[in-house]
Amino acid sequence: MCQLLGMNANTPTDVMFSFTGLACRADEHKDGFGIAFFENRGLRHFIDHHSARHSPVAGLVKNYPIKSDNVIAHIRKATQGRVALENAHPFVRELWGRYWVFAHNGDLKDYAPRLHGAFRPVGDTDSERAFCWLMQELAKAHASVPSIDELTHTLRELLPQPARHGTFNMLLSNGQALWAHGSTKLCALERRHPFGAATLADEDLSVDFGQHTTPNDRVAVVATEPLTTGERWSAFAPGELRVFVDGARAC
Amino acid sequence: MCQLLGMNANTPTDVMFSFTGLACRADEHKDGFGIAFFENRGLRHFIDHHSARHSPVAGLVKNYPIKSDNVIAHIRKATQGRVALENAHPFVRELWGRYWVFAHNGDLKDYAPRLHGAFRPVGDTDSERAFCWLMQELAKAHASVPSIDELTHTLRELLPQPARHGTFNMLLSNGQALWAHGSTKLCALERRHPFGAATLADEDLSVDFGQHTTPNDRVAVVATEPLTTGERWSAFAPGELRVFVDGARAC
Repeated sequence: MCQLLGMNANTPTDVMFSFTGLACRADEHKDGFGIAFFENRGLRHFIDHHSARHSPVAGLVKNYPIKSDNVIAHIRKATQGRVALENAHPFVRELWGRYWVFAHNGDLKDYAPRLHGAFRPVGDTDSERAFCWLMQELAKAHASVPSIDELTHTLRELLPQPARHGTFNMLLSNGQALWAHGSTKLCALERRHPFGAATLADEDLSVDFGQHTTPNDRVAVVATEPLTTGERWSAFAPGELRVFVDGARAC
Repeated sequence: MCQLLGMNANTPTDVMFSFTGLACRADEHKDGFGIAFFENRGLRHFIDHHSARHSPVAGLVKNYPIKSDNVIAHIRKATQGRVALENAHPFVRELWGRYWVFAHNGDLKDYAPRLHGAFRPVGDTDSERAFCWLMQELAKAHASVPSIDELTHTLRELLPQPARHGTFNMLLSNGQALWAHGSTKLCALERRHPFGAATLADEDLSVDFGQHTTPNDRVAVVATEPLTTGERWSAFAPGELRVFVDGARAC
């Protein structure tokens, strides 16, 4: 199964600790990785179809402390679509003058949505088809960029449709909010004052967040499985959609 | 003035020699850089709003021998638009299930094309406006991905419109071809058998391409100014459009 990681914060935050936790699971997910960092409206997008354990691109990402307030990362184990660069998540499209980033964990069976709009898949995954369909339907539902609440309302109507075809754990961000939809396996954590210490679940590495943060900082992290011990992760119910804005759950 | 670099080859080729030549001009173009590499339909896209001399992202690009058959790179000196990540070239959009990459050198005055289609600027440069307009007009002109010849014909009609507003040296690629439009300053070079040696014009570095190539390899390079000495660069006439496919000029 692929691994997802999302981060939403109220101040640009270094995601490296969480990405290291994700990348150390990469041996069993050797079919590519990707990570996208928003910096205001701008986006850095790094993908590779080599394992995050060995990719020089992952090496850069692990060592270069990019600070961002919205991050989506993905480590791939191919279920549909060849192992190729164009099939690496996260995928990016532009809508209403904003970049949108999407990553998916799961497998959609017999999923061939009608794509008649301006968004077409470049690769051959079920995931990119679902993303293009979501973008198309969002574009039809709103003439220009709506509020976070309106977007959430529309997404709540749309997400059950691809989810009917199989497992649809997904992360979506436009740089203003992080939408997370759980189908089988997704959990979230909110870090805020007073910050404590956490240890990566898979690797002998711990961080005392109290030393790296101010009392006003808030960070939400969403992942396929809890990345740390010593923190309270909350599991998504099947079909649950959560929205994170400024490092806290908005609904 | 910004610096452009484009490469089109008939076999995946290492662009590092040319990128080093471009990056060493970066001190006077300190407002960002970017480079996009096609690998078949997939795309790697690296941008930074820090100088290519000092950016860790540029360091990765210089040291990691990514091989590609279509590359567009840009080193920015801001004329319009703030120094921000969302204003870094090259820009990327998807059309007809293909990624399209665009970089521009120049300055368009009073350029506010009517954007009523599916492509909107994320940043605030004249360049991204021109790219969105080109994508919109290509999408209107063809229902699905046309041949290279048809695309060239449409581009030949479209390009004079933004070019009327100022300097419009530009590079465009969809991974199948490289379109280059000269307005004031652009030159091109085709390397093919028998390959000779070349020395970078700005840096004490030379490469004997004969040692790195096979007799069938063909590479076309387009740049703002000749990057090497000892090779014959051909300057574009004002308003000239050239198209490169498989490392050679198609028209």
